[in-house]
Amino acid sequence: MAKYIIGVDLGGTKILSAIVTKNGNIVKKVQVPTQASRGRARVVKNIVRSIRTLLMDARVPLSDIEAIGVGAPGPVLFKEGVVLNPPNLPGWKRVPLKKILAREFRKKVVLDNDANAAALGEGAFGFAKGLKNFIFITVSTGIGGGLVIDGKLLRGAWGGAGEVGHMIIEPSGPRCGCGRRGCLEAMASGSAIARLAKAKLKTNKRSLMLKLAGGDISKVNAKTVEDAARSGDSLAKKIINRAARYLGMGLANLINILAPDAIGLGGGVMKMGQMFLGPAEKAARELSLSPAAKLVKIVRAKLGEDAGVIGAAALCMENK
Amino acid sequence: MAKYIIGVDLGGTKILSAIVTKNGNIVKKVQVPTQASRGRARVVKNIVRSIRTLLMDARVPLSDIEAIGVGAPGPVLFKEGVVLNPPNLPGWKRVPLKKILAREFRKKVVLDNDANAAALGEGAFGFAKGLKNFIFITVSTGIGGGLVIDGKLLRGAWGGAGEVGHMIIEPSGPRCGCGRRGCLEAMASGSAIARLAKAKLKTNKRSLMLKLAGGDISKVNAKTVEDAARSGDSLAKKIINRAARYLGMGLANLINILAPDAIGLGGGVMKMGQMFLGPAEKAARELSLSPAAKLVKIVRAKLGEDAGVIGAAALCMENK
Repeated sequence: MAKYIIGVDLGGTKILSAIVTKNGNIVKKVQVPTQASRGRARVVKNIVRSIRTLLMDARVPLSDIEAIGVGAPGPVLFKEGVVLNPPNLPGWKRVPLKKILAREFRKKVVLDNDANAAALGEGAFGFAKGLKNFIFITVSTGIGGGLVIDGKLLRGAWGGAGEVGHMIIEPSGPRCGCGRRGCLEAMASGSAIARLAKAKLKTNKRSLMLKLAGGDISKVNAKTVEDAARSGDSLAKKIINRAARYLGMGLANLINILAPDAIGLGGGVMKMGQMFLGPAEKAARELSLSPAAKLVKIVRAKLGEDAGVIGAAALCMENK
Repeated sequence: MAKYIIGVDLGGTKILSAIVTKNGNIVKKVQVPTQASRGRARVVKNIVRSIRTLLMDARVPLSDIEAIGVGAPGPVLFKEGVVLNPPNLPGWKRVPLKKILAREFRKKVVLDNDANAAALGEGAFGFAKGLKNFIFITVSTGIGGGLVIDGKLLRGAWGGAGEVGHMIIEPSGPRCGCGRRGCLEAMASGSAIARLAKAKLKTNKRSLMLKLAGGDISKVNAKTVEDAARSGDSLAKKIINRAARYLGMGLANLINILAPDAIGLGGGVMKMGQMFLGPAEKAARELSLSPAAKLVKIVRAKLGEDAGVIGAAALCMENK
């Protein structure tokens, strides 16, 4: 009997592949650059190569692999296993990645968007172990979500459910990557934090952020804002609070709509920890209705950097 | 074998009770005033009396009744059958209405909030017949919703899911009845339309709305705005468009989060028909992500005035 599952976490900058046990433990992990700018064929080659390298490095024969799970940037068509046109994979348009990998390795392949994969991983092995109703949200460059309802991942009518990052919460806000204004992603993501910091620095040359960026506003990113806030910079603190409160508003909306048992937050921005989680949680509870506002657990997700590959593997173990 | 179900639609101003067949047909319907201002005991008496009157008028013996379903103003605790503290039922606080009625009539009683009940009714007998994933939204004085996912009504962790009216979509908007700012209900309900009209009329004495209200701003309601808009009043049209666009924004958020097959809109405000549905649908499609934006059906709900009692009866026929 095949012992392992391969989880592939396809990102815009790196591809992480791992051999994962059915208990969610990582046997071996490999990272290669995506080389997204070199186009679709190259990226697909890199995925295949990373899986082959992984098997060789781990000295695991392909016959020990039961299935391959792929978490890809959305939007994807779940059933068909097709990656549509992710903004961070230029040149991709309806790529049948599931079919390509199934043919290459002659294994069952399951593909879904990365946030859905991570939600399943967190449900099987992370913060939501044992919970029937929970939401996983990843806050990084963008904001994505996976919703588990009654023990099952919600995909909706065509597979596109869970796009929580494009919930509009500030209609006159800045333009989002999707073209609309004031999406949660445009208000509370890492890019939103960086953009706001850059705008504020134009008229506020004294902030520590500018110093940390070597005087070059264009080099300010979310990490710069975090570092400055930790050193007590008041503008940086304000920017982080503001983004976190918007995130909390988005969480409150989800709590009112879905009444989950718990919400787990992952992704790069959540590495800020309590500095970001604190005001987000406070806003979420203030802005949602009782009794949900009190009952829901709001926590950091548990799988961290490995959420992607463990989640991708979990796609192959899903109860449907 | 018992042939009928009694559906009770408990509202802030009237109580509708009906004998309903298992095919969703109404055999007999009775309406009595709620007399909410006279307090909880009186309202409970009125419910009991309305059911007794209904049975007598229809000449149906209690033994022909299988169960009683109650759609009550939220929030309610579904499993316990407890009505918490609805704003339009003053003096109510954790009323065990399910237990009270079960004791009175010695029948199985199922109680849920009115929007959930109507969603089940629409799923069994209305616009969503045969659909597995749909949303019912009622737009009247307030805005409520019922979400059906994978063929089951979503109640969430404690029964409070579906509070779509309290999704915040304009954080600096007017205060909602719930105490927060810019909830969908505060932007797009009948009360929101009336409030905006009243505010605008203070500086716009020429609008037809004022004439229709006999010159008394305090008498302007959503119907006044509708009538003025139908007669070509441009301010009234603007107000309706604005509210409808906010509703569409709320729908877009729900489409992005849940990817439903269809959304059905009911409640008093929807009697405006295309004048309100048109701009709401346009905004919903513009503001949601493709392909969901194209695939989702957005329609008027089908059961109209009877959604409440048929939905309440449907509570007793729910697959769980």
